[in-house]
Amino acid sequence: MRLEHALSIILSNVHGLGVEEVPFDSSFGRVLADDVVSKVDVPPFDRSAMDGYAVRASDTFGAEEDDPAELRVVGSADIGTPTEVKVGDGESVEIMTGAPVPEGADAVVMIEHTRLENGTLKVFNPVSPGENVSSRGEDVERGQVVLEGGHRIRPQDVGMLASTGTCLVKVTRRPKVGIYSTGSELREPGEELKEGEITLVNGYSLKAAVEEVGGKPFLLGIVPDEADSLKNAIGRASDFDVLLLSGGSSVGKLDMVPDMISDLGELLIHGIAIRPGGPTAFGIVGGTPVFALAGFPVASLVAFEMLVRPALRSIQGLPADRGRTTIKAILGRKISSSLGRVDVVRVEVKGEDEGPMAYPIRVTGSSVLSSMTRADGFIVVPEDVEGFSRESEVEVELYG
Amino acid sequence: MRLEHALSIILSNVHGLGVEEVPFDSSFGRVLADDVVSKVDVPPFDRSAMDGYAVRASDTFGAEEDDPAELRVVGSADIGTPTEVKVGDGESVEIMTGAPVPEGADAVVMIEHTRLENGTLKVFNPVSPGENVSSRGEDVERGQVVLEGGHRIRPQDVGMLASTGTCLVKVTRRPKVGIYSTGSELREPGEELKEGEITLVNGYSLKAAVEEVGGKPFLLGIVPDEADSLKNAIGRASDFDVLLLSGGSSVGKLDMVPDMISDLGELLIHGIAIRPGGPTAFGIVGGTPVFALAGFPVASLVAFEMLVRPALRSIQGLPADRGRTTIKAILGRKISSSLGRVDVVRVEVKGEDEGPMAYPIRVTGSSVLSSMTRADGFIVVPEDVEGFSRESEVEVELYG
Repeated sequence: MRLEHALSIILSNVHGLGVEEVPFDSSFGRVLADDVVSKVDVPPFDRSAMDGYAVRASDTFGAEEDDPAELRVVGSADIGTPTEVKVGDGESVEIMTGAPVPEGADAVVMIEHTRLENGTLKVFNPVSPGENVSSRGEDVERGQVVLEGGHRIRPQDVGMLASTGTCLVKVTRRPKVGIYSTGSELREPGEELKEGEITLVNGYSLKAAVEEVGGKPFLLGIVPDEADSLKNAIGRASDFDVLLLSGGSSVGKLDMVPDMISDLGELLIHGIAIRPGGPTAFGIVGGTPVFALAGFPVASLVAFEMLVRPALRSIQGLPADRGRTTIKAILGRKISSSLGRVDVVRVEVKGEDEGPMAYPIRVTGSSVLSSMTRADGFIVVPEDVEGFSRESEVEVELYG
Repeated sequence: MRLEHALSIILSNVHGLGVEEVPFDSSFGRVLADDVVSKVDVPPFDRSAMDGYAVRASDTFGAEEDDPAELRVVGSADIGTPTEVKVGDGESVEIMTGAPVPEGADAVVMIEHTRLENGTLKVFNPVSPGENVSSRGEDVERGQVVLEGGHRIRPQDVGMLASTGTCLVKVTRRPKVGIYSTGSELREPGEELKEGEITLVNGYSLKAAVEEVGGKPFLLGIVPDEADSLKNAIGRASDFDVLLLSGGSSVGKLDMVPDMISDLGELLIHGIAIRPGGPTAFGIVGGTPVFALAGFPVASLVAFEMLVRPALRSIQGLPADRGRTTIKAILGRKISSSLGRVDVVRVEVKGEDEGPMAYPIRVTGSSVLSSMTRADGFIVVPEDVEGFSRESEVEVELYG
């Protein structure tokens, strides 16, 4: 099955999980479920943006070094308290940055442009109305949409939530993702291996990949290659929002998983025209989307990137794409690919004088995880392209 | 003080915090303190990469559809257990993907290229030595550096740690960052405001910014503008690895903080030629680096980005830079800047047909946080540049 077709089947079978409210100060990294509308004006009153004197701008018109405007100082405006004093014609009020601008004043003269002589304020530069005043609602007006639904919350957005008094934030629920590793030959990392046994890798890398994209991973351990064990494992699908299985290493054995998905639910995809990651299956068991990923570590992570990551993003209300930052780079070595199949080529990116260069990583074997640990990102070669020649411009998606 | 000079003072006053060991499966996102050297070969034995038959390659030379090689099948090799049977001249062993290649065999013929007839295996395609075998150490050799010190651990790297049996990982310690907000006019988000009071913003956005860069933030609350309170707050510096204060909104008041740093320790920086974020101070109190950031939310976050973020990265063993992904973009509107000052201009990035365009966000006031929530990234205009004209190519650093 073509990748695009597979992805559209997957995306039409995953759904958002609704909304939860979290305190704004633990919302960093979450995805907004709805637009955030400010209930207040920010700033909440006309504030001075400078230390100086609040004045009527018209009283300063024409002021210059040799012919300063002269004003009476009738009081002072302090931070954190209402300013009671008012400014009339020919009057001024001493004011600190952040203090409420007194009634009657419409501008602030910077202290550097004044001199106090015998109780009279000399103003050497004119100000225009509004100058050095942060007026009420200048940053945000009450009723204004300050952040949009579907947006992932960054540090400045946390500040905006604080600023607008949005104490509880509606965010999308994070999917609970169960992760099984299948294969009787698997042993936990650090366990001594007998000949023929190998160390479990995929469960752990997939757990981190789920975390990276905002899901809640649950590592469910190793399932031996026996029908009963596999049946019990896949039968637990409905305990989770998404279930991932990564195969043992055998193609023969791998087929046990799709067959079991078929027995317990509905198998919708079996095999995708992509490399690595081709032997991937997808179905629905007990209402839960179930992905059966290949056993080779690289294949399982690439299939995760291309199929599971967009699904987990979509569930959270993000665009149903991979969501990687993309840069343009010049290819340092040619890439050969086969027609009719999407190739995902891991690359190192090196900044050269002429801009970034992407060097495909030479892969000597099909299970070479070091091809991914050395990579800074990857290039997706479409089905209808036979590769890219050296020095062509390519798009590189960067690992986070 | 020039930004570059300030940064070099800061970086020469922050130091790594040493190393801690964490289980590999909670190391995602941490920074490696040392190179990781594999103690094992991966894979740990010669494995079959295909379902088929293990053979001596030389026995298949010259085989073709009309003239297959004929071999005896002397046993089978299974996954997860040692292969006891050996392959001699003219012999073969049935093998599954992932099973140990038996002694005497040096290649695997794919099952698709064979037929079993009356107990005799017919091989229709020749294989060369090593074909379809993942040989021991093909991915990683024992003693090989698989991940380098200073690298931030990604999902594939977690897989590599698992794969090499690196159960405990040496990572750099994360800095504990205390965060105070100073200003008697500040109220917690959601509290009703009397005239003149404003809502605390910086503490919360800085907390998320510290988290984003890998630090451990401790929100220490609001410090009123009184010498004793400020003295107590800054006096706690040595409880943390880094202390941040963000000023109240007044320039006059802000000076209380640098003065107090000077009283309690050593003030090294006071005022930096950068906008926004100019009124920033830095010093050492009780051995702890203390940053006094401006009170305006944008100024404090920009100063964090330009000064604190590189420091917190350096402490964790990462390059002492901002560590943002950078893209090239075409400027959609001109930027004016003043000579002698670094300007940090927030931009929206829009993908157009010709590539990404960067649109500087129009800022109407000095405290406009919405200029940062609308931004996708920022452009740094150096001191010796008066700005960039429309349609010039610029580097945009992207917010995460």
